[in-house]
Amino acid sequence: MTIIRAGLVGVTGYTGMELTRLLAGHPNMRLVRATSRTEAGRPLSDIYPFLRGLPGGDVVMTAPDPDDLADNCDVAFLAVPHGAAMEMGATLRERGLRVVDLSADFRLRDPDVYEAWYKVPHTRRAELPQAVYGLPELYGDAVKKAALVANPGCYPTATILGLYAALKHGLVETDGIVVDAKSGATGAGRKAAVGTLFCEVSDTFRAYNIGKHRHTPEIEQELSAIAGKSMVVSFNPHLLPVNRGILTTIYARLAKPVSPQDVQAAFEQTWKGARWVRVLPAGQLPETRHVRGTMFCDVGVVTDQRTGRLVILSAIDNLCRGASGQAVANANLMFGLPVETGLMLAPLMP
Amino acid sequence: MTIIRAGLVGVTGYTGMELTRLLAGHPNMRLVRATSRTEAGRPLSDIYPFLRGLPGGDVVMTAPDPDDLADNCDVAFLAVPHGAAMEMGATLRERGLRVVDLSADFRLRDPDVYEAWYKVPHTRRAELPQAVYGLPELYGDAVKKAALVANPGCYPTATILGLYAALKHGLVETDGIVVDAKSGATGAGRKAAVGTLFCEVSDTFRAYNIGKHRHTPEIEQELSAIAGKSMVVSFNPHLLPVNRGILTTIYARLAKPVSPQDVQAAFEQTWKGARWVRVLPAGQLPETRHVRGTMFCDVGVVTDQRTGRLVILSAIDNLCRGASGQAVANANLMFGLPVETGLMLAPLMP
Amino acid sequence: MTIIRAGLVGVTGYTGMELTRLLAGHPNMRLVRATSRTEAGRPLSDIYPFLRGLPGGDVVMTAPDPDDLADNCDVAFLAVPHGAAMEMGATLRERGLRVVDLSADFRLRDPDVYEAWYKVPHTRRAELPQAVYGLPELYGDAVKKAALVANPGCYPTATILGLYAALKHGLVETDGIVVDAKSGATGAGRKAAVGTLFCEVSDTFRAYNIGKHRHTPEIEQELSAIAGKSMVVSFNPHLLPVNRGILTTIYARLAKPVSPQDVQAAFEQTWKGARWVRVLPAGQLPETRHVRGTMFCDVGVVTDQRTGRLVILSAIDNLCRGASGQAVANANLMFGLPVETGLMLAPLMP
Amino acid sequence: MTIIRAGLVGVTGYTGMELTRLLAGHPNMRLVRATSRTEAGRPLSDIYPFLRGLPGGDVVMTAPDPDDLADNCDVAFLAVPHGAAMEMGATLRERGLRVVDLSADFRLRDPDVYEAWYKVPHTRRAELPQAVYGLPELYGDAVKKAALVANPGCYPTATILGLYAALKHGLVETDGIVVDAKSGATGAGRKAAVGTLFCEVSDTFRAYNIGKHRHTPEIEQELSAIAGKSMVVSFNPHLLPVNRGILTTIYARLAKPVSPQDVQAAFEQTWKGARWVRVLPAGQLPETRHVRGTMFCDVGVVTDQRTGRLVILSAIDNLCRGASGQAVANANLMFGLPVETGLMLAPLMP
Repeated sequence: MTIIRAGLVGVTGYTGMELTRLLAGHPNMRLVRATSRTEAGRPLSDIYPFLRGLPGGDVVMTAPDPDDLADNCDVAFLAVPHGAAMEMGATLRERGLRVVDLSADFRLRDPDVYEAWYKVPHTRRAELPQAVYGLPELYGDAVKKAALVANPGCYPTATILGLYAALKHGLVETDGIVVDAKSGATGAGRKAAVGTLFCEVSDTFRAYNIGKHRHTPEIEQELSAIAGKSMVVSFNPHLLPVNRGILTTIYARLAKPVSPQDVQAAFEQTWKGARWVRVLPAGQLPETRHVRGTMFCDVGVVTDQRTGRLVILSAIDNLCRGASGQAVANANLMFGLPVETGLMLAPLMP
Repeated sequence: MTIIRAGLVGVTGYTGMELTRLLAGHPNMRLVRATSRTEAGRPLSDIYPFLRGLPGGDVVMTAPDPDDLADNCDVAFLAVPHGAAMEMGATLRERGLRVVDLSADFRLRDPDVYEAWYKVPHTRRAELPQAVYGLPELYGDAVKKAALVANPGCYPTATILGLYAALKHGLVETDGIVVDAKSGATGAGRKAAVGTLFCEVSDTFRAYNIGKHRHTPEIEQELSAIAGKSMVVSFNPHLLPVNRGILTTIYARLAKPVSPQDVQAAFEQTWKGARWVRVLPAGQLPETRHVRGTMFCDVGVVTDQRTGRLVILSAIDNLCRGASGQAVANANLMFGLPVETGLMLAPLMP
Repeated sequence: MTIIRAGLVGVTGYTGMELTRLLAGHPNMRLVRATSRTEAGRPLSDIYPFLRGLPGGDVVMTAPDPDDLADNCDVAFLAVPHGAAMEMGATLRERGLRVVDLSADFRLRDPDVYEAWYKVPHTRRAELPQAVYGLPELYGDAVKKAALVANPGCYPTATILGLYAALKHGLVETDGIVVDAKSGATGAGRKAAVGTLFCEVSDTFRAYNIGKHRHTPEIEQELSAIAGKSMVVSFNPHLLPVNRGILTTIYARLAKPVSPQDVQAAFEQTWKGARWVRVLPAGQLPETRHVRGTMFCDVGVVTDQRTGRLVILSAIDNLCRGASGQAVANANLMFGLPVETGLMLAPLMP
Repeated sequence: MTIIRAGLVGVTGYTGMELTRLLAGHPNMRLVRATSRTEAGRPLSDIYPFLRGLPGGDVVMTAPDPDDLADNCDVAFLAVPHGAAMEMGATLRERGLRVVDLSADFRLRDPDVYEAWYKVPHTRRAELPQAVYGLPELYGDAVKKAALVANPGCYPTATILGLYAALKHGLVETDGIVVDAKSGATGAGRKAAVGTLFCEVSDTFRAYNIGKHRHTPEIEQELSAIAGKSMVVSFNPHLLPVNRGILTTIYARLAKPVSPQDVQAAFEQTWKGARWVRVLPAGQLPETRHVRGTMFCDVGVVTDQRTGRLVILSAIDNLCRGASGQAVANANLMFGLPVETGLMLAPLMP
């Protein structure tokens, strides 16, 4: 049995933490390096006591060192902030590692758009064309041949999978789409900050970055590719007092009169046989907990004839499907493993 | 000092509980009757230990009896399910009590619309024209003269106050409006049910009644009155894992090119001097906790020129502003008290 | 590869739900029957949408029928209330099934003690001596030969594993022990009840059944067996606003002067090589999330020389380790599988 | 009507925030100064949007300046960390202000004990004898004449009020008492820190500082004063995933055979007529939500004859009763107002 040696660059954030969880249960991939400037020298189980006694728990953290990673790993997962991943990703590529970048640095095909939204220069424009957007359902074949995967953002994953069937079947107008998205607090990261303290998030609810979240151009890039024409989307995120989970409620105008049954059938037919996209029966709506800790994307659709609207709801786990699980799926593909290897987890309920 | 004697019909639900809290601190209104078929004979502090030692805590619950209420109360608050309030409200009116009905039974001017959405016959059509829709900011003068007040629903309160300025100033198209609403779990009531157990609501998020919630016709009725033309709205509620609070995110197409500054000014001018509607400074967005336990409605507005949309956010406490506090405000008005009497509470933070 | 056919009697509670989750990922055990009187005829994924697409999700629920279970299953898990399990367990035994009973019906060796605490007659006293108390670390060898396993209670599991090393090494006095236990709300079951509604459990904390919880005699029975003398324990549970997890804080008087280092060493030596009991390094204290969804029992110990007390803390997942996961471990043992088969899950963090 | 001008030194923490909430509703006290080095120049409503439109919301924050405070305030509330309050408190006293210090700096009568537990030198030993320990039920008369009040800690408030009746009546042995305390996360403060992020506190439970929390000597000092002999207590705190609230579960050995009825009577008699200490009827146990946002301390007592133990439970709101509300009560007393002025709030339920 092949064992792929994995290096994790940036282990102290939530996506890094989630990668350690998933790799602890992966039959063909083993965590051999985990980097942290501040925690170098300590075993992982010191900062993550939940890993004690599990594969990976004994890995001693190291400062990030491309040479060391290149010498010891087959694949590197970059769980560092945007901007920081750019150089590290390109460097590790040059050393021959396969790279899955969980940041936004290689997601946008147009570096000018990247710079406009992320406010940092893109210093690795030459590598951009090689990067494959790692949404397995859409780009799985390309990922298999890729050396550098740009792992999709959490909101884009939920939004694209939610809208895909409607766009493919021409059920909705491509203009005027509104995405009202709600995310758990792991999406805000693991940095010390007053705004994400327990007492500032618990028992409350708020929107943020209305109309200007950085995932907007990523969503528009991919929806435009699916629709075959340029799309502008109103994307509006909110912060939920839960740890994990994204629910998107997507509003689109029906392109033509259509029955709820036909809409339901179009969705079911599109995703027939899909491993992780579960189209719910008519009348059921997704819940974030039903996908907790997994790769599932649950999709429900309501044809509201009274208002002429299609309302699509999609739910994912932002950390697993929306980040680290999807990264492992992409690594599976890059190394010729079945995409679901180590990832057919049952949701933790409740 | 006048003391108004209040009777509370239906004390075991969350709106009943909230009324006991508010009346415990009201300087001019005193709880003298609290009805419950199942708990009759016990003092309120038995089922609500938080009331021990506070005004109202010693009130002994009684079975609902119109005669007894008529003999001992000046005003009755009906905190019973729709359908049940209809007869009780009309009966108590006939006995001369002022009545604030927290159910939906007298909110919709057209009883046929009521029957279509609520699936029960309206048996008191004659009383409907007398009922005043108790949103103080819009109908305060009428409430002062009313004998029967239909207390607004929680979602309609948040939605109407959010949209009012935009409609009044003609900033948005009246068709195609989408309301994505999120409510705390007290909105689901205090009946024993598996679906609202702690473990079924905690750490998750879901939508419900997409496109078919009963507050829809109430919202449309009032928005149409404001806009001066018939409006159809896509209203879509979600369940938050918090106790209290509603946040609505309202999407409307801009009717004409307008600067964010002008939109902000229009909102601020509309609500200048308002006691409870707080238009947030440009760039700030409302949070449910900032209005917790109070009558405030916080409104934030974002002019999204990229998508040609106005995004309005409004936050209320669904139990206080969206139900029991608004009921007390209406009773204040009916008895000639300043509307804010006993209701200028500071939010519990955090 | 052997596949063991499992029947689940009582699928609609939280321990039933947890069994469906664990069996969905078990390589050698397959759910073939799931009983529910109210839901018979529907596939499991109808009531548990999280199971859609996973092993077991398609199982059609049936009314409980011993003949059908005997014909189709190798092992039955009884996830029904105490009292109800007694007859069903004995009946299924008579038909030759191996039985793991998650209720309390076969845990107490003395049926009079059972009747005194549970207030129901014990109608299967003859079967009691055959039942093995299924705590794998203590009774694993007996379980391997057992036909009927009494699966331990959640609180007893956490308490016994926490105290075991201290009693074995004679570190503490056996009288005067206080167990202050805190459990997540899944411990309260999935019955519709006002007291466990989200809004009655969220954002609050309370004790219940102080000094009279039914797990007390079970704890005393097992601790007495370990200590070799009769023990009386003060056991006091509390309800946490979390879904899963038990933390016990155990207070015992030091039996003799001892250094913290020696205490730590005694605990580490006792559990050296244990798969699931993780003694934390000196200075670390357990957290419920670190064992979420798993079989781990994390144990921390503080020697408080100032007060002459040993303070032991133990954390488990009440649903997995404290019920369904332990049941699967026992079934593994009964069928000759490694105890950890299908159960080496990494905790969901955060 | 007298208006007392209040200065708040340190407004950005949770006790500062709570003081702004309580002063916004106080009929005789007005917030005129609020200090923050980092936020000086901004109105309070900028950082606390919940205060918009309420008394105090317009106060412009200033850097802490004893001269300015002395010129404009009658009383100063010190809501700064221990160590920092010492000099500020003494300085403001010298300028003639009445001072309520919410930190620990003047709570311990023996400065050597202070230094041993708090690890900072006590530089104002001369002022210590003047400071009055501001627990109104015990020291109300002394507070009336005090110029400097040491506002009690949150855990000591709950513990002392819980144990007072038992010690006064000699019901329990004074040695061997165990206090198992659980607090909401506001108790951990409002500093940016990974350990108190939402995702690190939500859906989990843990102990901290077992046997070595700094409130221990304060508890022992006051219990010893009540009992009339030196007491050593095992005090052990835990962190709850709630915003507000402390529940203590206190274990003590019965000093003599006594009936539950007599114990209950002793507790009720001790607190008869008390405004805020509510002894619950036999069989009821306190919950943190029943005192949320208030000055109440709910006390329940269980006489466990089986184990020879008294189990006392007490619940307070750590921010209101355990800090800022108690501070306002003390200021009320210092200025000759009824102690409950502005503080007879009904709990927010749920």
